[in-house]
Formats: sequence, C-alpha cells, structure tokens
Amino acid sequence: MSGWVRVLGLGPGPSEWITPEVSRELAAASDIVGYKAYLARVEPRAEQRVHASDNGDELTRARHALELARAGARVALVSGGDPGVFAMAAAVFEAIDHGPPAWRELDVAVSPGVTAMLAAAARLGAPLGGDFCAINLSDNLKPWSLIEKRLRLAAQADLVIALYNPASKARPEQVHKTFTVLRGVLPADTVVAFAAAIGRPDESVHVTTLADADPSRADMRTLLLIGASGTRRIERDSGAAFVYTSRRAAGGS
Amino acid sequence: MSGWVRVLGLGPGPSEWITPEVSRELAAASDIVGYKAYLARVEPRAEQRVHASDNGDELTRARHALELARAGARVALVSGGDPGVFAMAAAVFEAIDHGPPAWRELDVAVSPGVTAMLAAAARLGAPLGGDFCAINLSDNLKPWSLIEKRLRLAAQADLVIALYNPASKARPEQVHKTFTVLRGVLPADTVVAFAAAIGRPDESVHVTTLADADPSRADMRTLLLIGASGTRRIERDSGAAFVYTSRRAAGGS
Repeated sequence: MSGWVRVLGLGPGPSEWITPEVSRELAAASDIVGYKAYLARVEPRAEQRVHASDNGDELTRARHALELARAGARVALVSGGDPGVFAMAAAVFEAIDHGPPAWRELDVAVSPGVTAMLAAAARLGAPLGGDFCAINLSDNLKPWSLIEKRLRLAAQADLVIALYNPASKARPEQVHKTFTVLRGVLPADTVVAFAAAIGRPDESVHVTTLADADPSRADMRTLLLIGASGTRRIERDSGAAFVYTSRRAAGGS
Repeated sequence: MSGWVRVLGLGPGPSEWITPEVSRELAAASDIVGYKAYLARVEPRAEQRVHASDNGDELTRARHALELARAGARVALVSGGDPGVFAMAAAVFEAIDHGPPAWRELDVAVSPGVTAMLAAAARLGAPLGGDFCAINLSDNLKPWSLIEKRLRLAAQADLVIALYNPASKARPEQVHKTFTVLRGVLPADTVVAFAAAIGRPDESVHVTTLADADPSRADMRTLLLIGASGTRRIERDSGAAFVYTSRRAAGGS
C-alpha cells in the first residue's frame, strides 16, 4: 500500500478560485488534514477521514500528514491561498528535512493556487504590474530587525510591496512600525491599498496614500499593498478607482 | 448594449490550472482577444469572434479589447499565467489611463490565475517559503541600471528572487549580467533553480548552485529562482531533490 501527500491550495476563499487539479486531488484522497477553517471550505465524501486541527503549530500538522502517508493513506493537506506562499508547503518540507529518512522517499507533491496578493491585485486593477516583493510581517519565526531591513531595502529598490499577515490580536504593533519604516524612505503620496477578505462576502478595498493611511485598519484578514513610484490611481465616476503600476519605470524607453 | 472586458489568466499551461472563474468568463464572452499562442489553449464556440495577435505591442492589444467593449462586445482578453504579473493587466490600465475618458467608465475586471513562479515553486517543493520578490529581467520598458539596482538590493535583503523573462533571442546577455551581479553579493553555495516550461509536456527542472549555474541554460520559457540563506535541498533516492526555504530566518525564535 503506497501512500502520498498532496499539499493543496484552496485560494483566498471562493470555490471559483480553486483549480481543477486541487479539486481532483481532494477527491482522490483517503484522508484530509488541515486547519478547521480551511476544512469548512471542502465537502468530504462519507468515506474520507477528516483530521481537523487548530491554527496552531504547522509543523505538527505537517508531521501528522506525513505519518498518515507513511502508513498508506492518500493525504490531502489543505492550505489557504497558494500553499507555497506563507502557508503549509514550507512546513511540510521542514518536517521532511528534520524527520526520519523514510519521509524523504514519500510521494509528496504541491499543487499551486491563487495567493492572496494576486486576488487583491486583480480586484484593484494591476498594482503588481512592476517588479514586486512579498513580505510576511509575522515575527513569530524571524527577528523583527530582519523584517525592518527587508522593508527598507525593498522600498529603496522601488518594488511594489505586498505585506502578508500585517496584524493580529497578538501582534497589533508590527504594522505601525512598518509604516514608520516606510514613511522614512518613500514619498508621502505613495499609493497604499488595504485589501480585506478578498473573495469573501464581506470583502473590502480601501485605497489611500502613505501619508494618510491608518495602520490600525489592518487585521489578520488584510493584504496590504504599498505602491512603487510607478503605481497610479485612475479615478472613475462609475465605481471604485483602478490602481495599477506602470510597466515603464522612470528612464525606461 | 453594454460591453465589458475581462482580463483572464490561463495559468502556465495545463487546463487543470485554469480557475473555474476564468472558464466561466471565457464562456460568457462574445469576443476573445489575445496573443495567438494563448488563444491556441482555448476552445472557442462557433459564435465567438476570435481576434488573434502577434506577440507584439501589448498596449495595442489592450486598446483593441477596450474599443470592442466600448462598441458593446463582451471581451475576454486572455493572458498566460496571472494577468497581473508581467502580463496583460497592467497594459489594459495603462491604455485606460492614457485613453479617452469614456474608457474609464467601462466594466473592466481582472481574474487572478496561477503565475509561473507559483507553478515552478510547487514543482520544486517550497522555495518561496520565505520572503521573496519577482523581477522581470526584460529591459524593454525600464533601464538595465534599475534592474541591477533591484537585484543587488533584493540579494542584500536575503529575499528569494524569482526572475521572469530571463532571456530571449533578442536579449541573451541580461541573464549573464544578472549572475555577475548576484555572484558579487550572495554566497557561492546559494541554491539556484532553472524551471523550464512548467506544466507543459516538456517541462524540466535543474537545481544547482550560484557558483555552478550556467546562465545560458535560461531561455524565454524559463523561470529562474535564486535562493535565500534559508533555502535548502533535500536529496532523495526515489526522485528529484526537494527545494524549500525555511520559514525560520537566522536569529528567529
């Protein structure tokens, strides 16, 4: 009996953003493992075993999936967004790297998905139209000093900056410190967008400037986008402004 | 008669990576506009008008889609990958920004998709597990000096670096210059991956180090990934090595 693990990204919310590959792998699984909020978005068949976990240690969840596969189960490990972007895939390979040698030989594969910044960008227009970066503001696994250094260098590089996990109840201060760092480097009129719960019924978008932005607007469901020098707003009478980043940088042909 | 434009990402290749939303919007269109290589991946119904273009000026293609919508057509403008990442969406909003005022009020929306770096990352394991950036190496629209500056700052920030459009027949030299810049900043044993034509029948992955990498291996179908300090290889007997970036940065808890 030969088990496997498929690390599957469910996208930011709606089933219309789940790829057919992910739906097929989910259907083929004998066991489904994941944080309970993600499991609420799948519809298991009666014969599929569902292993719900709290939003606690991702390594524990990854090890559980690998142990089940080692015992012969076909395991779908579900993740929000794209599993490779600040989600479950890195935890799985960390677990393999530091686990028993037999885990290295397991059949493990990742299916890509729509990550939050792509969904937020689509709703706004095309803010990621220039070079960009994605930074996770959680300092649970890296020192804050490194995050500040990355923010400063990314701003100096004139990259569009997508900020994941800008704030939570346990970490309300990082997003304030982030704005302090960015205001030290970038112009006051830099476009800033708060994209909240994109793809969910209560989604919202708020576009402002670096000078006017209120960091406390960000919570754990917010994706924050900081524009580059080429990021512009297009005002409209008939709806929300479009936001895009010009493909032409200053000095370009 | 009220037209619209939907900017749709077909993903990197296989239909299993096209979201249901994109399939639905494609089916609802009266007109399909796109580069002919992307149009070859859709199956229009008999009554849908197809407008194929060469891989030339994206602004011309965008304007064509907007003109059709203004005349009442329901236009699907198809793009590879995610339309917001170095693809058609930015060109559409540039066209709107610099076009007739009426274009601003058109019903224009973008559907997200799987962009090349997410597909390449999924095939490799989880190389985007830490903070990362995406840089387009084409200097058609921005000066090479700016690209070099961004490469240098991204390497100093210890970001994983995804390089889009590393080389083409018209631009064989940029990827060589890129490696010269990166070798001046990053350690020789930095993990480097060439991911070619991911999702296509002839896909391939080559994992090496910054010291050993041969830049001439990159072509227009290659996505290049440059690891960060936390990027590791997991060697296996039963298949290709996994590549992942640890979520824990040096100094993290």
